[in-house]
Amino acid sequence: MSQPLTFGITNRSAENTSRTGIVTTPHGAFKTPAFMPVGTRGTIKGLTPAQVVDTGSEILLNNAYHLMLRPGDEQVAALGGVHSFMKWDRPILTDSGGYQAWSMADINTVDEDGVTFKSIIDGSMIRMTPERSIEIQNNLGADIIMAFDDCPSSVEPQTQNLARRRLALTSRDGVMTASEHESRLLQSLERTTRWLERCKKAHAKPDTQSLFGIVQGGTNLDLRARSAEQVCNIELPGYAIGGVAVGESPEKIQEVVKFTAKLLPEEKPRYLMGVGYERDIVSAVASGIDMFDCVLPTRNGRNGHAFTRNGQLHLKNACFKADNSVIEEGCSCATCIAGHSKAYLRHLIMSKEMLSGILLSIHNIHHFQSLMIDIRLAIRDNSWSALPNRWPVLLAK
Amino acid sequence: MSQPLTFGITNRSAENTSRTGIVTTPHGAFKTPAFMPVGTRGTIKGLTPAQVVDTGSEILLNNAYHLMLRPGDEQVAALGGVHSFMKWDRPILTDSGGYQAWSMADINTVDEDGVTFKSIIDGSMIRMTPERSIEIQNNLGADIIMAFDDCPSSVEPQTQNLARRRLALTSRDGVMTASEHESRLLQSLERTTRWLERCKKAHAKPDTQSLFGIVQGGTNLDLRARSAEQVCNIELPGYAIGGVAVGESPEKIQEVVKFTAKLLPEEKPRYLMGVGYERDIVSAVASGIDMFDCVLPTRNGRNGHAFTRNGQLHLKNACFKADNSVIEEGCSCATCIAGHSKAYLRHLIMSKEMLSGILLSIHNIHHFQSLMIDIRLAIRDNSWSALPNRWPVLLAK
Repeated sequence: MSQPLTFGITNRSAENTSRTGIVTTPHGAFKTPAFMPVGTRGTIKGLTPAQVVDTGSEILLNNAYHLMLRPGDEQVAALGGVHSFMKWDRPILTDSGGYQAWSMADINTVDEDGVTFKSIIDGSMIRMTPERSIEIQNNLGADIIMAFDDCPSSVEPQTQNLARRRLALTSRDGVMTASEHESRLLQSLERTTRWLERCKKAHAKPDTQSLFGIVQGGTNLDLRARSAEQVCNIELPGYAIGGVAVGESPEKIQEVVKFTAKLLPEEKPRYLMGVGYERDIVSAVASGIDMFDCVLPTRNGRNGHAFTRNGQLHLKNACFKADNSVIEEGCSCATCIAGHSKAYLRHLIMSKEMLSGILLSIHNIHHFQSLMIDIRLAIRDNSWSALPNRWPVLLAK
Repeated sequence: MSQPLTFGITNRSAENTSRTGIVTTPHGAFKTPAFMPVGTRGTIKGLTPAQVVDTGSEILLNNAYHLMLRPGDEQVAALGGVHSFMKWDRPILTDSGGYQAWSMADINTVDEDGVTFKSIIDGSMIRMTPERSIEIQNNLGADIIMAFDDCPSSVEPQTQNLARRRLALTSRDGVMTASEHESRLLQSLERTTRWLERCKKAHAKPDTQSLFGIVQGGTNLDLRARSAEQVCNIELPGYAIGGVAVGESPEKIQEVVKFTAKLLPEEKPRYLMGVGYERDIVSAVASGIDMFDCVLPTRNGRNGHAFTRNGQLHLKNACFKADNSVIEEGCSCATCIAGHSKAYLRHLIMSKEMLSGILLSIHNIHHFQSLMIDIRLAIRDNSWSALPNRWPVLLAK
């Protein structure tokens, strides 16, 4: 069987466990550490593929769950797969739908075989199993596909409600006592391993699509160790850390990632799912993580927020009304290069014009890609400690 | 006083009164007959300036009324004018706000001095006079500015309600008898002439901005003749036909335009405001019109309609669900060149994704610019009668 994914490490930092590398896929290569913008429904909201390329993005993420519901994974397959469907001929990763089944459905039930939940489109009941999730992802045809895992709340019981309110999430787990929560985590990670075996077995296109396993275990390091051991015992081209960035503190994320990353095979790409802010990414790279995805640049862009090296600007603020300067001096994104001023962007936001979300998404994705470039340079040049000089936001509380 | 606008006629058709030409402005030239996409609030909805250039557009239209309300014309002036504000360094034309004061306000009153109407933003009462409209347009700084005219309903009394429903418009005129309507039209065109004199007198930047007068008179040809004589007696760099395409039949538009165009000076650009569909444009060009603007390509694009040489496609229709072909074979717009299929566009429409409106606006504006290219070639090559061969939509009922 040919191997559709290769990972070559090109530099290792002398200062920490970070590394640079190149991942090759059937749709070309991407440099790591890599940031993947999120194109949930087969589109990075408001951006043409050419504009996404222009942000420096080399791989993007689609959601199997959303594309399964609409237009349907078989429909996408009949149209030639998700690359052809959205006219993005570079690498794509699809999420399995496990997280969405947990987070987006008011009503869901989990059993040993799979999850049943309510469609966000028409309210019909959807059945998702490891086999069905892989079938969907085989139909979509992304270069990297993710295991279908059991995703319980990873945060401590006392912070669950807060986390759910922050994330506007509901869960099948309800609010549990600490011991119930630990027992649920344990059940989830054992089940995730059994489901991973089923995913691997069901995977019909290993010659063209690479299946990544996902380590669970919440914020409990013993459970993380147990999950990592089980998951990594199953031979796969890459491994991910799931169940973080669902409401924990940055320190907790950092602790879990640092502990878990070193348990994943050194020679394979490591993907930290759904993370995050600049400091979360930088500390995770220092722990040896290679891949990231996050909705922050696009979602916050649509909400009028611009990321800068000094922190986010809320461009709706009246102080930008007469500000004729670009978002960030020296920025090479298409929005700043064209010279669009903060005053103009504020006008577009106030007027509810689509172009504000577009111009800010372009800038914000470019911001994260610029961070990744500087991270890779810092690894190559052993200048890690100088990173905050160019990125003061990393020092912010 | 230097002349900021020149118009050179480059070809005249041997078959009709159409002509090609070049208009030069302080921000460059545009070829005529020209189609101007509408960027109401200082943005062609969803498109970056680079994407607008890529459609083949050489001049665009902004609305003085909307920019006066937000962010304010003085604010735009302080930021360097509307070209700098929206980063479009090519020709811009601003509409005067006369039409918007008539069409967009529930409550408005007109007197000899001007119009008072309710702001669409905060409900406050706005006073607009010829002097204030020119001041606003001087502040915005477009290359071509329009006279502030009195815009009554131009359609016959019995069709007014229908027209208003179709256009979702209200008017200060209410529903009138035929003789009341004619009397109101007469009053309006006499007032439009007096207001035009005031506009010309108030115009503070004739060295950089070119004021166009507007001929009114509804569908009454006697009134059109009277208005044309009065308006063209005032020396200006260009003249427009207003008060059409507000609910009349295509035949009526054609009759009024054919009659009125020949009354406008031969050596100056003639602009038909707010028109329209392909056949309306083609027949107006044959009557000697040089400039057009219309919201159709962008508004219909956001509603899921794609213009083609054979007519519009409503891409939401289920028949496009599995259609993997581009909107129009051979089309050179960025959307079709990228290969986006009707099935993908339909998916974006069904998913309410911003990208559908963007990709369709790009295609639709390009469609109208392609029509203008073919019109100019047909004039140059005296192949007018062959135009419907390449544009079957011109023959549709």
